[in-house]
Order: sequence, then C-alpha cells, then structure tokens
Amino acid sequence: MTTLFTTIQPTFLSSKSTVFSSSNPSPLLFHFTPKPFFKTSISCSLNHSTRPPYIPHHIPNPNYVRIFDTTLRDGEQSPGASLTSKEKLDIARQLAKLGVDIIEAGFPAASKDDFEAVRVIAKEVGNAVAEDGYVPVICGLSRCNERDIRTAWEAVKYAKRPRIHTFIATSGIHMEYKLRKSKAEVIEIARSMVKFARSLGCEDVEFSPEDAGRSEREFLYEILGEVIKAGATTLNIPDTVGITVPTEFGQLIADIKANTPGIENVIISTHCQNDLGLSTANTIAGAFAGARQLEVTINGIGERAGNASLEEVVMALKCRGEHVLGGLYTGINTRHIVMASKMVEEYTGLHVQPHKAIVGANAFAHESGIHQDGMLKHKGTYEIISPEDIGLERSNEAGIVLGKLSGRHALKDRLKELGYELNDQQLGNIFWRFKAVAEQKKRVTDADLIALVSDEVFQPEVVWKLLDLQVTCGTLGLSTATVKLIGADGKEHVACSVGTGPVDSAYKAVDLIVKEPATLLEYSMIAVTEGIDAIATTRVLIRGDNNPTSSTNALTGETVQRTFSGTGAGMDVVVSSVKAYVAAVNKMLGFQDQLPSNISEERTPVSA
Amino acid sequence: MTTLFTTIQPTFLSSKSTVFSSSNPSPLLFHFTPKPFFKTSISCSLNHSTRPPYIPHHIPNPNYVRIFDTTLRDGEQSPGASLTSKEKLDIARQLAKLGVDIIEAGFPAASKDDFEAVRVIAKEVGNAVAEDGYVPVICGLSRCNERDIRTAWEAVKYAKRPRIHTFIATSGIHMEYKLRKSKAEVIEIARSMVKFARSLGCEDVEFSPEDAGRSEREFLYEILGEVIKAGATTLNIPDTVGITVPTEFGQLIADIKANTPGIENVIISTHCQNDLGLSTANTIAGAFAGARQLEVTINGIGERAGNASLEEVVMALKCRGEHVLGGLYTGINTRHIVMASKMVEEYTGLHVQPHKAIVGANAFAHESGIHQDGMLKHKGTYEIISPEDIGLERSNEAGIVLGKLSGRHALKDRLKELGYELNDQQLGNIFWRFKAVAEQKKRVTDADLIALVSDEVFQPEVVWKLLDLQVTCGTLGLSTATVKLIGADGKEHVACSVGTGPVDSAYKAVDLIVKEPATLLEYSMIAVTEGIDAIATTRVLIRGDNNPTSSTNALTGETVQRTFSGTGAGMDVVVSSVKAYVAAVNKMLGFQDQLPSNISEERTPVSA
Repeated sequence: MTTLFTTIQPTFLSSKSTVFSSSNPSPLLFHFTPKPFFKTSISCSLNHSTRPPYIPHHIPNPNYVRIFDTTLRDGEQSPGASLTSKEKLDIARQLAKLGVDIIEAGFPAASKDDFEAVRVIAKEVGNAVAEDGYVPVICGLSRCNERDIRTAWEAVKYAKRPRIHTFIATSGIHMEYKLRKSKAEVIEIARSMVKFARSLGCEDVEFSPEDAGRSEREFLYEILGEVIKAGATTLNIPDTVGITVPTEFGQLIADIKANTPGIENVIISTHCQNDLGLSTANTIAGAFAGARQLEVTINGIGERAGNASLEEVVMALKCRGEHVLGGLYTGINTRHIVMASKMVEEYTGLHVQPHKAIVGANAFAHESGIHQDGMLKHKGTYEIISPEDIGLERSNEAGIVLGKLSGRHALKDRLKELGYELNDQQLGNIFWRFKAVAEQKKRVTDADLIALVSDEVFQPEVVWKLLDLQVTCGTLGLSTATVKLIGADGKEHVACSVGTGPVDSAYKAVDLIVKEPATLLEYSMIAVTEGIDAIATTRVLIRGDNNPTSSTNALTGETVQRTFSGTGAGMDVVVSSVKAYVAAVNKMLGFQDQLPSNISEERTPVSA
Repeated sequence: MTTLFTTIQPTFLSSKSTVFSSSNPSPLLFHFTPKPFFKTSISCSLNHSTRPPYIPHHIPNPNYVRIFDTTLRDGEQSPGASLTSKEKLDIARQLAKLGVDIIEAGFPAASKDDFEAVRVIAKEVGNAVAEDGYVPVICGLSRCNERDIRTAWEAVKYAKRPRIHTFIATSGIHMEYKLRKSKAEVIEIARSMVKFARSLGCEDVEFSPEDAGRSEREFLYEILGEVIKAGATTLNIPDTVGITVPTEFGQLIADIKANTPGIENVIISTHCQNDLGLSTANTIAGAFAGARQLEVTINGIGERAGNASLEEVVMALKCRGEHVLGGLYTGINTRHIVMASKMVEEYTGLHVQPHKAIVGANAFAHESGIHQDGMLKHKGTYEIISPEDIGLERSNEAGIVLGKLSGRHALKDRLKELGYELNDQQLGNIFWRFKAVAEQKKRVTDADLIALVSDEVFQPEVVWKLLDLQVTCGTLGLSTATVKLIGADGKEHVACSVGTGPVDSAYKAVDLIVKEPATLLEYSMIAVTEGIDAIATTRVLIRGDNNPTSSTNALTGETVQRTFSGTGAGMDVVVSSVKAYVAAVNKMLGFQDQLPSNISEERTPVSA
C-alpha cells in the first residue's frame, strides 16, 4: 500500500552521462529503416513550445492541445472523494501551477457548497494572471436547464475567463430511459440552453452530448451543428460508459470533424471514461483525429473506473507527440505532476496503486529493495521518463540523510526534491514536527517527511483537536480508550469508552465528546517508512448520521450523500487513527457550515 | 466497496454495421466513413465459442486469441510481490480455472525456490486435464544460455504441455549497454539457444526479442526469421519499456507479420508494459493486427507500471471483439476474474486502486453511499459490464444479512456470491471465526467476510503463531507490549518490549522471541467494513536482515533480495498488525527452508 515515491536510487544516473536531449536527436542508434520508429531520443524532457493566446473557439497553433482538468467535478463524484472548499481551492491552485488550460471547478447547482467552491476558485485562481498572460479558464458544469446554467454563471463569472459547460444525453438508451424525450425535443433543449448561456454574457460555452459513444452518428452531427449555430465554442464528445476502443473513438472524432456543419469554427474535445482500461488510449486517439481539448483528471479518478488521467495523457503526448502523433503538444508544466498527484490522493482519499503509470510508487522503481549488483548499466535501458520530468528529483548522494542536526534549509531542500513546495508557515510547522521525530529516530527518511507533510499540510480547518489519548488493548479483550479533545471554543473535553479494539474504543470516546455520530465507511493505514519505528499515516472515510450533507449528481440527477475523508500521521498507529477520525469529523462539520451545536460550556467528562 | 449488478439492454444499438476486419493489415488509420457504431448489443456476456485444440505453432480457429498469463513471473518481479511456492500453486490453480492458455510459472534459474515452484506447478496444474481436454501449457522463462534453458526444461518437463520461453535483447540501447554484443552475435545466440531448447525435447519454444518496441525493424525480421528456422513456435514482441502508442504497436505487429520469413507457421504474441498507461490498448491493437497470444497479468501487476491486465484485455475482447475487432475471442471463463484478482492482491500485497477498471472497488459503483432516489431507471444507462460476468453476484434481496443465527450453508452461499469458492476445510475454519464475529456484531457484512477469508485462506505455512497480546499506548509515550507466541515445536514463548507505538513495541517483542530480525518496509491496513467496529486487515512487507533470500532478475541479471508480505485480520488493529507481522515472518522462514535455528527449549520469558 505504498502511495508515495520512496527511496529513489540516485546512482544510476552516474558515470556514463549519456544525456538524451531533444537537441541531440540521436544519441545512440535509432536510425531505422524502413520507417523510423523513434525519430529522435527516448527522453521525455522536451516540448518547450509556447502556449498560444486563449480564444474560446479557436487555437492559433493547430498542434496545441488544451488540457481540461475535471478532477474537481468528475473526479469529486468518485465514491468517498468529497472535497471541502479549501481543498478544492488548493487543488485549483495546483492545477494552475501545472498550467491546465481549463479547470472545471464543479457543478454549482449541486449544492451551496459546490457553488461557493466554484465562486471562490473563479475569484482567486481565475484572476491570478501569470507573467506570460496565462490564467486558467474556470468552468462550471450545468445540466440543460435555465436554473443550472444561471447558477453556473453566477459562480464562474468572477473569473477572467469564465466558461459554462452544459450537457444533455443523446444516446438512444439515455433519451429513452433517463430523459424520456424525443430527438427533436433534445435538440431544441440543447439549442435553446446554449443560446441562453450566451445570452447571460458568457462567451465561452461548452456543450456535451452525453453518452456520445453510444449515440447515432447522424443525430450527433445534427445536434452538434445546431448548438454551434446557437453559440457553443467547444464541443465535448464523452464516451460516458467507457465502451469504445481507440480506433473506434478516433473514428468518432474524425467523423464528427468531417460531418458536422460549422465544426471548423469550434474546438472538439474528448472525455473518456475508463471502464475497459482504455481511456488514455482513447483520449490520445481522439487528439490524433482532431480533438484539441482533452478532459482528464489527476490520478484518473472519477466514477466507476474513472477518467483518462492527466499525467498519462500529458506524458504520452510529451514523449511521443512529436514523433508519432503529428507534433501534438500541451502547455502543461509536468514538473508539478507529483505534487498534484499527492495532493489529490490525500484530499480525496482515493489511493493510487503502486503500479499506476507515471505516479505509482513503483513507476520508477525496478526492484523492491537493494540492487546488490549495483545500478543498471544505463538508465535508459528500462526508463523512458526521467523522474525529474514529473517533479521527483534525485539527489547525487545516496539519499540525503536528515537527522536531528539538520536545519530548516536542508529540510526545505529535501521537500522540494520530493515534489513539495511549501510556504514559510507550512515549513515552520513541519520543521518542529521533524525535529520531534528526529529526536526519536536516528535517520528521518523521505517517507517520514512525506507522511509529515500529508499530516500537516493536507488538513481541513480545525474544529476539534486531539490533545491526549491513552489506550489499553490486546487479545484479552476489553479495549479501553480515554481521549482529551479541545474544541473550537478552547474548552477541553475528556471521555472514555470500551470497544472491540483500540480504535473502536477511541472513536467511541470521540463520539461521546463531539456528539455528531458518524458511520465509518473505510479505514486504512499506510506507513511508507522503512523501519519498524515507522510513521504511520491513517485514513478514514465517514458519513454523518445526523444532518446529512448531500449533493446532486449531475449525470444521474440523484441526490448523493456526501462522505468525508481524514488523515493522521504519527509513530503510534492508534494515535494517528484518532487524528484521522477527528480530521474527518472536522471536514464533515466544515461542510455543515456550522459549529457543532452541542459543545457544553465546560470541560465535560463523560464515560461509557 | 459496493458492487452493483445489471442486465444490459440492447436498445440503443443502431442498425448499420461496421466491422473492422482483422485481415486488414493496417488497423491504424481511420478509413471508415460515417458508419454506425454498435452493430448489436453492448452486453458483454456472450462468446461461448469453443477453445480450439492446442498445437504449439498453430491455432485452427483464426479468431481465437491465446491468453498467456505471466503473473507468476513478470508480476512476481514487482517490488515486494515475492510469492511462496504454495501461493504460486494456488494462483496457478486459479489461472487454470480461468482457462488461461499458457501459465508462465516462473524463471526457474532465478533460485532454487523459483525452480521448485515451477516444477510443482508443472506436475500438478500442468497435468490436471479438464473434461473438454483443456490443460494449461506450463511455461518457464530462461535467458539465452544453456544453463538457464536446461534449468527451465528440468522444471517444466513434467507438464503435459511444457514450454520454454527464452529471450535476448534486440534494441540498440540494450545490445550496447546491457549485452555489449553485436547484432551478428545476438542472432547467433538466439538461433543456437532456440535450437538447444528444441534439442532437449521441448516442442513448444517461445522466443522474445527484448525491447522489440525500440528495435530496428529489419533486424527484428532477420532475427525472428532465424529463430523460426531454429524451431521457435511462438514469437513474442515485447514493448519492454512501455513507450509505444497503440497505432504504433499495432503497426509493429503488422510489419512483423508482413515481413518476417516463415512467420505464417508460428504464433505472434504481445507483451506490453504500462509505463504510459497504454498497455491494454497496445495489446488489443496487437491482436487486431495479427497477434494471437497476449501476455498479461492479473490486476496488471509487474515491474514499474506493470503489464497489460488480464481482466481489461479479456473483457475488452469479450465486449467488443465481435463488434469492432473482427470476431476475436478468448477461452477465458471470466466468472473467475474476481477471485483471481483478490487472490493475487492478497498474496502479492499489491493493492488495486478503487478506480481500477473491471476489478477496482468502485468499478461497478455509481455513488458512494446510498441512492436516495432509488436505483437508476435503467442499469444499462451507465453500466456496460454485468458484475456477474466477472464473478460478482448480487442477490435479489438488498443484501443478505448474515448474523449469528446464519448457518454454514448460508455462509457458503454468500461467499460463493462474493467470488470465493472454498473447500470444506477452509469453510469450516471461516465458519467458526464468522460465528465469533457474529457474537460481537449484529450484522456481519460482506466486507467482514472478505477480511476473514483473506485472513484464513490466504496465509503461509505456520511456523510461529500468536497466542496472546497485551498493549498499553497513547500520546503519553512508553508504549508497552507483551506477546505470547507458540513455535513449530509446540513451545510457548513470552516477551515484552517498549517502543515508539503499540505496533513497534509488539513487533520488537516478537523479534525477541523469533530472533530473525527483519526490516519493516511497508505497513498498511484496510478495513473494508462499514461500521466503527470493523474488521481491520493489516498488511506488512518485510525483508530479512540475516540469511537474506535472494533471486536473480531475468531481465537485468541483477541479484534481488526478496521481501515478504503478510496479512492479518481482526477487530483490534494492534492484534491484526501483529498477526500480519508473524505471517510475514513465517513466509520468510518458509523461504529459507529451515526452521529458525534458535528456538530455545522451554518457555522463554524475555524483556527489553
């Protein structure tokens, strides 16, 4: 269950410094006949082409592909992935660092929380213009009705480049069973709602025919032609159920490009679900066939098997765009990928498997432990992407060992090498905890640092905080825990409880104080650290039993009850478990947008 | 970790038909004019075509695609995935249930353990002929040298259908930096070693030009033509570094098919790594271009980002083979996919992310918790694969609730619905633990059952067993644990230790008894159970500090130190952590093929 990158062996960079550079196209021996397979190098560190100016319906450079990130909308619809407004804002800032062209910040009509999150992102991230003029488009999703569209506009209009994304299903099965509407009705709704969006003053309107992958071709051409006339600037083609294979999806895009009236004046986009594991390939096939906007999520999260993942699509274009994909390129600064991946993993609670492409813990590791025979003779033999390209740096030393004498500067440097850029306050907080760990451990590893960062940086606003905990447990039963929490009001509360194990008893004691009963949906723990005195990171997922916070699913229209994740790290697994639970409870309380109603005035000893 | 069900509806399918013919050698481009998308149904539950008789170099039915599973070889090379012989045998049996055509059981020359595991699988699984005549080919990997090949043959020859798989690198970068050999030398080695393998009496020889994805085309045609003359029956084309995109890999297969002398008399195979997230698509593109053997692993495990995953490739062919892939089909019984996936996840310790296609926990779930508006109006709206197709069954009731009054039969039925087929002894063991849990919990959930099965069934041979544990811990420090273990000799041992947390102190106490110091590489815990009184499953990964057990990596030739995973489940996280550690220690001791040397004669109280 490793999630993060741990010890990366630096030595294989060593001696033979054959650097594959883009300016040195053929460092070795890849001059093939009859067809050059790899025209130049196998390194993926090039593409410094410039980002063309943003015009909603047109891209001046025909090879430039826009990246539309929907982690905050489609990704957040994943089971258990609910994000607070603060978390969404953090992720949006990270997406802007990546240079994502369009951020789909949410579905504003889903709930007040969703609306607010989009509005804050539009105001802050949507106005942070970089020196080169880059500022992400902030997009809000809406179903094809006036209320949704108006709500979306109210949320995104604060951005320098606001966009409304509206959709309606066009496949037979969806029109018949979900919408219960005829083709003519669906066309009319789409046309008039795109027009309505434009009428609000929004000059950047995206339209998606939902389940396009299973829609009739002629009907698609017709409805798309109509929404273009109504003012749509981007047409997104979703393979909503993830059923297509790449040739087929590429053909769909090519057909739409060839047959839709007016298509030359708008941008075609892809949105591929991953049900058969083909979303990245389908997305790339779509780009090759003419799509110039690709909808993706960080780590490929999303409902069911998720979406095409940003890191895979972007790195595939970066590595192969020039050589086998006609020169396609993106504006993504790939060095921020690792940080984005870690942040989304922490905030959503959706872990990344060790063999996940690009960002999995093993993606750059060849063997588990030690290369007893020394490093590979040439790193290019088995490595096509350099870790540095995605924001992982390898120091020249065989692992900088941080210990109790290490200073703030050494810590900052190492964190940066690991992909974390922290502000001064964050660094200050981490530093003191680092010192505390260094007092107990001779050697503070990279994994320890990562656990500390997750615990310190990726946390919700604090309502309740754990002060003390004492537990007795074992095979003999009668696990007993006593906890002391401090509330937002500064008062201390103590409770004890028995339970089926140390965590159960401690959580029950927390419940006695917080009085907001929750159901534990998932509980997991990761210690990425080598050594038996590891820092354990615990993650929990809960659902509130009272005052449920709900949201509307954009696609199905169903009301969904939100769930909340929390993480905690420490050298004692029971302590970190309780910290995680308190964090999840804080997140839940933050969503309710109210302090717990029943904090009593004084220190409240309770027993159960 | 929900799973929904479905019945699929054929309604949205249109009338006209597009069949991509597999005889068309250039699958890459899109010369399809506007044509309808789905010829018939999108249901994935068909394909009852028969499996043709096995002839090494020829498949009587031109549309039949062989599935070659390399979970036990390439998959086991994943960091931390070391498997014991017993585990490998269990997995091989499960692969035979799936109907995998070829099982690559290991790399016999890597170590004595590897050799034995392959031999046992060849003897047992390789001779279990089904009623319809099916028996898997048992394959052993070997580098291109006489010693490796002879060792592989000694291991696989017991199977009814033995195969030797030998390989040598053919890319410029590999020949120059890894082999330090010229093209002529490489050809001569390949030719003579294939001949040598045949000379041993092996009539089924597979040859792989390693890093084919980056090899010169003409050189590939030449070396492949030579090994065909020397007697190779299958030619496997690996994209060793996972750098190709589907059109490119399909073209590689098509080119080899078109240009290699004698190719019509052998089987072409694919082996796609997943570094850019394209392995499934590349594999399918290879099949469409003419490959009739696909090398895959369960859950897509393998070095770095792993391999094409069996479940994705097989389900993609099952769902789309008939409609868009020219009628390609496999002989896999997909209903055993879930059990295989869970077994491999448990044994290797490589978890599957929730949004993993086909087998991820969310793959069939639309929302996290509750559909407050009731179920979807029509399941086919968002679901293309029926859970039953991969071995997940859903009862008609909204969840059978098992409780303390449930009998053995109800338990067996529910486990079967969850994908677990247990023998009577396993069921008996689970049943008593189920009763114990039911005494403490009103409702025993599916997740509880899964945790119990993992804990009971997926365990190594027992050397040490945990009897009792007592722990005190908390924020105040001085965590203290006392453990009582019983050894293989039946003697009880007690030790206590302090540590930085409850797990640390307990592990130290275990070490005091077992006296086989190990480094904890990874530690994680999953409680998939709803409810705060969940059954927690803990997993650890360790590496022995003394008597290291090592193995040789087939590709790099490096010596790799083995690591061992162990799992434990229980309602007390500290107890399950200790059970997991003891299980991993047992696995390590099993590999050393010796009992710990220093069990003292009597109950040994130790303190630290």
